Amino acid sequence: MKISDRIEMTMNAAISNGQGGIAPAKLAAALNYAVTPGGARIRPTILMSVAMACGDDCPKLTNAAGIALELIHCASLVHDDLPCFDDADLRRGKPALHRAFSEPLAVLTGDSLIVMAFQVLAAAAAHTPNRALQLIEILGMRTGMPYGICAGQGWESEDQIDLSAYHQAKTGALFIAATQMGAVAAGQEAEPWAELGARIGEAFQVADDLRDALCDEATLGKPAGQDDLHGRPNAVASLGIAGAVQRFDDILGGAISSIPACPGEAALAQMVRAYADKLVPAGARKRPTVPGE
Amino acid sequence: MKISDRIEMTMNAAISNGQGGIAPAKLAAALNYAVTPGGARIRPTILMSVAMACGDDCPKLTNAAGIALELIHCASLVHDDLPCFDDADLRRGKPALHRAFSEPLAVLTGDSLIVMAFQVLAAAAAHTPNRALQLIEILGMRTGMPYGICAGQGWESEDQIDLSAYHQAKTGALFIAATQMGAVAAGQEAEPWAELGARIGEAFQVADDLRDALCDEATLGKPAGQDDLHGRPNAVASLGIAGAVQRFDDILGGAISSIPACPGEAALAQMVRAYADKLVPAGARKRPTVPGE
Repeated sequence: MKISDRIEMTMNAAISNGQGGIAPAKLAAALNYAVTPGGARIRPTILMSVAMACGDDCPKLTNAAGIALELIHCASLVHDDLPCFDDADLRRGKPALHRAFSEPLAVLTGDSLIVMAFQVLAAAAAHTPNRALQLIEILGMRTGMPYGICAGQGWESEDQIDLSAYHQAKTGALFIAATQMGAVAAGQEAEPWAELGARIGEAFQVADDLRDALCDEATLGKPAGQDDLHGRPNAVASLGIAGAVQRFDDILGGAISSIPACPGEAALAQMVRAYADKLVPAGARKRPTVPGE
Repeated sequence: MKISDRIEMTMNAAISNGQGGIAPAKLAAALNYAVTPGGARIRPTILMSVAMACGDDCPKLTNAAGIALELIHCASLVHDDLPCFDDADLRRGKPALHRAFSEPLAVLTGDSLIVMAFQVLAAAAAHTPNRALQLIEILGMRTGMPYGICAGQGWESEDQIDLSAYHQAKTGALFIAATQMGAVAAGQEAEPWAELGARIGEAFQVADDLRDALCDEATLGKPAGQDDLHGRPNAVASLGIAGAVQRFDDILGGAISSIPACPGEAALAQMVRAYADKLVPAGARKRPTVPGE
């Protein structure tokens, strides 16, 4: 089965479980709204690619790990869009959840999806309880305090920001979770896979900065130019477009050379490169047109 | 060690872990603010009492289970106090967290505490991974959708409320989690303990209605008379004070007779009765004074 099919099938099952029985209908509908349309599903795709490179001997656990990670990501988008944070109108080309439903339902949707992530992992433990527990530990560490995306968002309330800790927690955390959880789901050690995740996270951040600077709202599915508008530190502001593209390529090279030895090493490297290239907007790689040339 | 000491010791360790390393200072402080002062810690006290009645052969797992449950309860208080829900100024006699810190930090504190609950359980798995996984499943079920406190709060956004599902999810869920998790932490089946939890939850709701109607803000540590103010269904409005006290006593009797056979059955019954009695405000049990008597 294709990775994208594994993701959507497992996600649908998880959301259906959360909606089942006698449940409040609006919150039940909001759960599905928060996780669709799927878009790139980049985090679970990386997770499953790593698991497959490591042999993927427990595919159900791999599927659960991928969906747990994506649920946390979707929860973070719903909470980050709240009026007290980004006050976003749009997400994935449709109204942000708190606009489509309500602010209370957006808070509860995020909370429910966080809980669901851990439920999905516990339910997939079967004959590998220790792998499932380790997945829960990694996901918790990269979601909560002091190293997870909650910490990353928390840094934005500080007067003095530790920029390295901020970026690692805000963007890097779920990519580190992706590579480590992929390895653990397939019975491998987590630690050797941290660097690949951290570097993919850095590359993703630079690509995001490029897209924010170069793409319009219709392409992004959310407002463009937000980094500039909010004065956020970003690679395009500090390096220019060509410099940011060079930085992206450097990080990507480091990411690929950090891949631990495993049966599917070559295929994984190819996947990471192909996937990452899609992240950089075409306009960023165009050389400037010289009139008359 | 006394139950209350076990709770505070384990809670302090969990919060310290969440604050450790290079973390955003305000969010780190907010984690502690959200779980102190401890107050009655009724849910973990019930959980540990059940575990002790069942032999408590893994006290570290019992401690973790108690704290995980209390973390979820504290997270729910922080989110329920947000402006988009109760917009509460006070909680436990001090400013609500979003007033003392900020609304973004209140959202993130709740999120972080939810995650921490599952981390605490996974970290305490040690030699009983299957018990830890079952604890995670129960806690997830009683926190998220469709049966947990998120669902309970979600019902308040519906035009047509299923009152039984609403009360079971909103107040009952964490008491059912308390009795079931206590039993599971000590290696017993979860199912026979559901009724005790559900009945304690009902009794607690009636006692809460009595306190809301009879106590002042200083005693409650939060505004009084809120049920009346918001027109919420409550036992005092429908049964009167004497009727509500009678209902409380009836539910409590049912709770105690539902306790499954276990080594500490008698002590547990006594604890539940003593504890529950403390919940009903003294004024509710006073007979009216007849002048001249």
